[in-house]
Amino acid sequence: MRKMQPLGEIRFIEQIRRGSALSKNSAVELGIGDDCAILRPDPNYEILVTTDFSLEGRHFVRNRHPSQSVGHRCLARGLSDLAAMGAKPVAAFLSLAVPSSMLSTKRGLDWIDRFFVGLHRLGDLHRAPLAGGDTAESPSGRVLADIVLVGSAPRGRSLRRSGARAGDVLYVTGALGGAAAELERVLMPGFRMRPIDITGHPHLFPEPRLAVGQALLRRRLATAAIDISDGLSTDLAHICRASKVRAEIEEALLPIHALAKQFASAKALHAALHGGEDYELLFAASPSVRVPRRIAGVPITRIGLLKARNSRQPFITLIDANGGRRPLEPAGWEHFSSRSFMV
Amino acid sequence: MRKMQPLGEIRFIEQIRRGSALSKNSAVELGIGDDCAILRPDPNYEILVTTDFSLEGRHFVRNRHPSQSVGHRCLARGLSDLAAMGAKPVAAFLSLAVPSSMLSTKRGLDWIDRFFVGLHRLGDLHRAPLAGGDTAESPSGRVLADIVLVGSAPRGRSLRRSGARAGDVLYVTGALGGAAAELERVLMPGFRMRPIDITGHPHLFPEPRLAVGQALLRRRLATAAIDISDGLSTDLAHICRASKVRAEIEEALLPIHALAKQFASAKALHAALHGGEDYELLFAASPSVRVPRRIAGVPITRIGLLKARNSRQPFITLIDANGGRRPLEPAGWEHFSSRSFMV
Repeated sequence: MRKMQPLGEIRFIEQIRRGSALSKNSAVELGIGDDCAILRPDPNYEILVTTDFSLEGRHFVRNRHPSQSVGHRCLARGLSDLAAMGAKPVAAFLSLAVPSSMLSTKRGLDWIDRFFVGLHRLGDLHRAPLAGGDTAESPSGRVLADIVLVGSAPRGRSLRRSGARAGDVLYVTGALGGAAAELERVLMPGFRMRPIDITGHPHLFPEPRLAVGQALLRRRLATAAIDISDGLSTDLAHICRASKVRAEIEEALLPIHALAKQFASAKALHAALHGGEDYELLFAASPSVRVPRRIAGVPITRIGLLKARNSRQPFITLIDANGGRRPLEPAGWEHFSSRSFMV
Repeated sequence: MRKMQPLGEIRFIEQIRRGSALSKNSAVELGIGDDCAILRPDPNYEILVTTDFSLEGRHFVRNRHPSQSVGHRCLARGLSDLAAMGAKPVAAFLSLAVPSSMLSTKRGLDWIDRFFVGLHRLGDLHRAPLAGGDTAESPSGRVLADIVLVGSAPRGRSLRRSGARAGDVLYVTGALGGAAAELERVLMPGFRMRPIDITGHPHLFPEPRLAVGQALLRRRLATAAIDISDGLSTDLAHICRASKVRAEIEEALLPIHALAKQFASAKALHAALHGGEDYELLFAASPSVRVPRRIAGVPITRIGLLKARNSRQPFITLIDANGGRRPLEPAGWEHFSSRSFMV
């Protein structure tokens, strides 16, 4: 942790400290202001750690995405990883580099202010205070953020990708494809930033499913879980690989988001299968377990089954409404594909 | 934590996994390969977390710094923060973005390989395995790294900046100004990268003082500590501010690094006071405590005293060999100053 300097970046640092003060978490013994933060989680809990980049030009476009959304999504990505393991947040850490020019213009400072509004609002909601991080001048002229989330879960109980077995039933929370559909709007020439309510915006303000993940863990409902950050096809393949099973999912069961339903059906299906960034949870449950239709107010939908792996069957099979079967290749977000917001 | 993709970046990911396998730490229950890593530190210990950017053009120059050095320094910055609090490492997390062009050329892949050689070698030495992180394509064409270190220390015993009192004696480990002196060489037109032994290179391969920090904590020698990352003048001011004291340091006592001694004396003094990146420890100890001349093989030097703060005296006073006194302003590394490697 770099020491925060008092000169030239006062407002920037104030914003970071504000987040530390806003949302409290009793496990944070010492926040910003020393070489390290000190955390004292419950001794019966294990510690979960995840890090996620939010890079301008890769994960967002500065003159397209409202900066509240950039701050919100930055934190949401990490919170969603905690949700996928059934953990509760302890603290967040933010490394943030901005071009020095942003610190000398009202427009730049406003952008940073609103970035923190978005980040703090979500952190406050989930008791994930900002307990430290690093600041730097961005040498490339682009905003660069890396978020770290530390969480905790009862020792030995974290939901992993690897616990599913053949015969388990597959479920997803909420609806799929909404983030891809909204992203298309954000990138359209006519899109303009304006004050936005955060509900009903799956791309701009995704809702990490922390309460659902914690309920799955507490009520011992799930054998394995993952968050759908890279797309259902890609994230389901991770579950299959880690749990050494294959999957069959039914097209007709997929809960397609209302925003994606405005597309033609093939495109809507593509968004739901491969769109990514929905930050819903995908989980497996034993067939003997009764999984409720809603958990913590979020709809839960059965979408398929896990089966024993064999060499004749594809990793993931998609079954259409007429019973037709086809292999589903992972085709979600690639970290090094050409898919990014750069043109 | 983003899921690692198998296509197009296999070698990159292999390097990351290798670090996870190389250096073991029994507190890492689950490393790379799930939504979060799972850590199970000793329940009687508190958890320390620190994050540090290493940005091309800000913290290093890709065609100047050997990439082993970039990987080493990236990890060293975080380890040094743990050292300053007397903690032992549990795990490291690396978010690393590289231009996609580096993944398709031998030169680029070699750079990444050697970056990890440097990082893993230091991690192995200090039992700080890479337990996760994130990867991305860097949209700016620059290498961007953010390192997270998680450590642990006996509950309530972490060395803070705020524990020093008036009357305490100030000490530093090792020697100062060496990093600034070596940096000047690295940036000279004639400098060429070549295979380098890691000892005796305070800028390229700084040695985080983990054993010293842990000994200070274990033997209850220090009342406050900080690592000298931003420069003695700046980091001592942090101790003074946090502990509500002022400091007097004696020029003649400062242990100046042999590389800095090759400069004229005024320049050598400037490097020792403000150079930064030496990653030595600065600590305060009660005058009643006997501080050894060496701890864990590292020389310990008394450099001055802490005094009660009063409005007539500057925050830090530098006393020269003739007894002359002058105020010492913090003039170390500024995160948003023009001081960076960009031209």
